[in-house]
Amino acid sequence: MKYQHNFNPSISDADVFNEIEKEKKSIGYYNLVHQDTTLFKEYAKSVKQTNIVVIGIGGSTLGTYAIYKFLKHSKTLTKQLYFLETTDPIDIKSKVEAIDLDDTLFIVISKSGTTIETVSIFKYINSLVKCDKDNTLVITEHDSKLNTYAKTNNIKTFEIPKDVGGRFSVFSAVGLLPLSIVGIDIDELLEGTKEIYASFFERKEVYNRLIKKARFFVEYKNSFNINVVFSYSSRLEGFNKWYIQLWGESLGKVDINSTRQGLTPIGIIGPIDQHSFLQLIVEGRRDKTVTVIKVDDFDSDLKIPYTKLDGLEELGYIDNIKFSSLINQQADATIESINNLNDIPCDVITIDDVSEKAISALMYEYELLTSICAKFMYINAYDQPGVEAGKIILKEKLNK
Amino acid sequence: MKYQHNFNPSISDADVFNEIEKEKKSIGYYNLVHQDTTLFKEYAKSVKQTNIVVIGIGGSTLGTYAIYKFLKHSKTLTKQLYFLETTDPIDIKSKVEAIDLDDTLFIVISKSGTTIETVSIFKYINSLVKCDKDNTLVITEHDSKLNTYAKTNNIKTFEIPKDVGGRFSVFSAVGLLPLSIVGIDIDELLEGTKEIYASFFERKEVYNRLIKKARFFVEYKNSFNINVVFSYSSRLEGFNKWYIQLWGESLGKVDINSTRQGLTPIGIIGPIDQHSFLQLIVEGRRDKTVTVIKVDDFDSDLKIPYTKLDGLEELGYIDNIKFSSLINQQADATIESINNLNDIPCDVITIDDVSEKAISALMYEYELLTSICAKFMYINAYDQPGVEAGKIILKEKLNK
Repeated sequence: MKYQHNFNPSISDADVFNEIEKEKKSIGYYNLVHQDTTLFKEYAKSVKQTNIVVIGIGGSTLGTYAIYKFLKHSKTLTKQLYFLETTDPIDIKSKVEAIDLDDTLFIVISKSGTTIETVSIFKYINSLVKCDKDNTLVITEHDSKLNTYAKTNNIKTFEIPKDVGGRFSVFSAVGLLPLSIVGIDIDELLEGTKEIYASFFERKEVYNRLIKKARFFVEYKNSFNINVVFSYSSRLEGFNKWYIQLWGESLGKVDINSTRQGLTPIGIIGPIDQHSFLQLIVEGRRDKTVTVIKVDDFDSDLKIPYTKLDGLEELGYIDNIKFSSLINQQADATIESINNLNDIPCDVITIDDVSEKAISALMYEYELLTSICAKFMYINAYDQPGVEAGKIILKEKLNK
Repeated sequence: MKYQHNFNPSISDADVFNEIEKEKKSIGYYNLVHQDTTLFKEYAKSVKQTNIVVIGIGGSTLGTYAIYKFLKHSKTLTKQLYFLETTDPIDIKSKVEAIDLDDTLFIVISKSGTTIETVSIFKYINSLVKCDKDNTLVITEHDSKLNTYAKTNNIKTFEIPKDVGGRFSVFSAVGLLPLSIVGIDIDELLEGTKEIYASFFERKEVYNRLIKKARFFVEYKNSFNINVVFSYSSRLEGFNKWYIQLWGESLGKVDINSTRQGLTPIGIIGPIDQHSFLQLIVEGRRDKTVTVIKVDDFDSDLKIPYTKLDGLEELGYIDNIKFSSLINQQADATIESINNLNDIPCDVITIDDVSEKAISALMYEYELLTSICAKFMYINAYDQPGVEAGKIILKEKLNK
């Protein structure tokens, strides 16, 4: 008997690691960890305006929003950050009306420089207030048309490196500049990513857990085609949205064997979604993995006070419990009830606290996990060819 | 050859309709359509406070939030509506700090009356401001402990009928009272539901489309286990969340053959998620149906003005286009690009405008669709046994 091998072999852990090591030369996000942030901080210090409005969409806003939303009530920030993303006229109008545009810095972010939503909104803003070098900043690729516009008008620009894709760009100027301007410590953000980077590339704890997790997700992708992130803090709502883009847009691809791949991300918030999505997880089809994210220390003493409510005495056992303890016990109860079922893959990530390091470590770990899954799936995590057809159709429609 | 039939037969359209007709006697939400709203409107008129804070979670808030979020910028509302839902201490603190509690009506909503999040937050609020008959309203079941508390303290109560489940309760006092108080026309809301009700129960257009759609979802559930709602308006973000609860919690069940059922809901927003989730829909595994929701008339003249931006001349074709037209053409381009693929089931719902009738018709139609799917799946849409285990574990933990 003769046999000729023509399947793509299942890739080994070592091969995946080597591929990632090789990829570091051409994919820029890995190395953002070691950036010099001096210019960002200098620029941030020079900003006089109270309101910072980011005009951008998708990868240009989701990461920044995730970090800002996570930290904004736990830090003393001196400036307000807003995002203008959508072409929904009611949304644009209501947001713009709430901001003093004369005391605003507009940060126009677009990697390609010709994102239709971003340019549309920027044009609209231009009709309300003169946008020039005193109140406008542009973040884009070196050779984009938006950069030409900025140069022609002496508007300050920062660059998005060519090899850093939008959804992997939060630790480039895209995220670090707006966050630094509103008072978030961007060096601490990079600290968090550095720890993950080191542990992964030195093949320590992070390497071990991510390779194992990615292999599981990919090997069981036909049973569990949905990956739920169940975050037990409302502060992680932005992270969930960012995760959905990162996961969906990176892994929804055709592989080298022309087979459609795609793990579907879902982000839910505890305990709110215990009253919504949890029933489906527990009794529904076994098509989901669950990753619970907890915050170890909320740095909050907020407590349920002892209160006598006639008729409601049976709930006395919640008196004098801290809300931070209650929410974490709710997470633990959910985890225990899922684990008791024995047939739902469930892991738990506990981040330390509500700090720059905690959120950036979590996000960088998810970026690495996405890259590793893509290797196991024989796909390119960094392109998005599937959305081009719609853009061409739209352009034809608008040109008519 | 003999044959004994022991499968549950696939149910006919007529049988499903008869089951729904029968169910109307025991499941209360169907008949909320014909309610008398006089008492709600009278109470609403008597409210003096400027801020209305709903304390509730899940079915007690999601529907109200969906309608409020949809309408709030398109109506002249005299009061602000807030929601306290979660046990996240940072969330509670930041929300409470932003509200003048002395000028606030607190509406405590819990069907069971002993929802742990709701009672915890109410106890906390009680420690900040005295809650009594002058600033508190209770909406609960007739024989709940929360009702006992309210009666003991002469606090006004409205009832959630026993046969109306939380996630189907938006058109009961749960939703209508807070919405009426802030100035939304609740009779118009019921008008929208009445049209859908009539068309369905007279077996006209709505009957035809819903039966067909539900049958498709259920018959293809093993191929397409994910149902994406792609709403082209940021105003529908609350609707998406409400849909996720309704669909997930109603249909994630074990059927009469002890088989796990469950269609997984996903809600995304256009055009924002064209820059995120769309790639996964277009190139990923064929495990999703897509329902695009459009708003025909945004009642907005907001326009992209003609603006000369040196370098960006190629985008001149967007000048002088209304944002409302742009967003709808973006939706159409997405629909066309999905339909061109020929293997993704995609339907389109266009609601008339940003009005009470439009949103309530949409929501009532989704409630009916959920009930019909449940019939095809041989499950009970109205219970949620899967979340009980976690509640028991939590109680044990807290009692320790």
